[in-house]
Amino acid sequence: MDIKVLFHVDECEKWELVLANCRNLLKAAGENRPEIEVVANSEAVKGMVQSSDADADLMQQLAGAGVGFIACNNALTGLGIQKEQLLPFVRVVPAGVLELALRQSEGFAYIKP
Amino acid sequence: MDIKVLFHVDECEKWELVLANCRNLLKAAGENRPEIEVVANSEAVKGMVQSSDADADLMQQLAGAGVGFIACNNALTGLGIQKEQLLPFVRVVPAGVLELALRQSEGFAYIKP
Amino acid sequence: MDIKVLFHVDECEKWELVLANCRNLLKAAGENRPEIEVVANSEAVKGMVQSSDADADLMQQLAGAGVGFIACNNALTGLGIQKEQLLPFVRVVPAGVLELALRQSEGFAYIKP
Repeated sequence: MDIKVLFHVDECEKWELVLANCRNLLKAAGENRPEIEVVANSEAVKGMVQSSDADADLMQQLAGAGVGFIACNNALTGLGIQKEQLLPFVRVVPAGVLELALRQSEGFAYIKP
Repeated sequence: MDIKVLFHVDECEKWELVLANCRNLLKAAGENRPEIEVVANSEAVKGMVQSSDADADLMQQLAGAGVGFIACNNALTGLGIQKEQLLPFVRVVPAGVLELALRQSEGFAYIKP
Repeated sequence: MDIKVLFHVDECEKWELVLANCRNLLKAAGENRPEIEVVANSEAVKGMVQSSDADADLMQQLAGAGVGFIACNNALTGLGIQKEQLLPFVRVVPAGVLELALRQSEGFAYIKP
């Protein structure tokens, strides 16, 4: 069983739910270490800023468990956020939507909490 | 034509739309009996409780037409809902997100109304 | 690289985000001309009416770049909208959910902004 999941978040208020979903998926998958990516675009990239209200500790813990955190550069630019302001484990891609498309073509399931 | 669809619902207020979408899909698919699963997690599992405001009659009718109704056990536990309180045709899975991932890997399309 | 993307919109307030996502995807994909379809159902079909508040100029421009705009006939009927009222490049399908299912089975990635 090869579990690959893409969580899409584009609203700040959804971060708590997204992170809970991630944690639940990791627990449920158990030995079948799933590949998980959280792709944030639009205003949701704010949740990846170091000083944000989102639960950076839980993100850090999930990143340590192998979850990828991806921020959309179009969104960062639009909001005037510098890469240096992001949590250190966040990876920046030119366009979140392209990442969402490419990963699905690689067999990732899409979940939008 | 082999139609397999996963409806994801995680907000109580979306039940009406989800059920209307299900009904429309069944009508439109006609002879090509589609495989449909409605996966509820987070607060949306409340809509599967017998006394909920959601349209239990329509759910019952859709279940009779073969639509699967799936509740996430993480959500039930978090909300203190017992399996006995759920509509009788609802199936409980340990984690809704894992169900969403596995079904997509089996070729189900994902729709989030 | 064969990029095929389905944007799903069922809330009027999401049109701006959906169109921005489309534009970003076109830019990011560059030479790899992606196949893009925007499927509107429920109240979101109102955004495809000629007199709507949605950005018809941007839609027109995207349509000119090959983006398909699809309206759900169930939604049009429910809202009393005639096909003649829609922007000229919009294509009407009997059921938006069936379109979403069929396109995914053809390899389109699903994105719900």
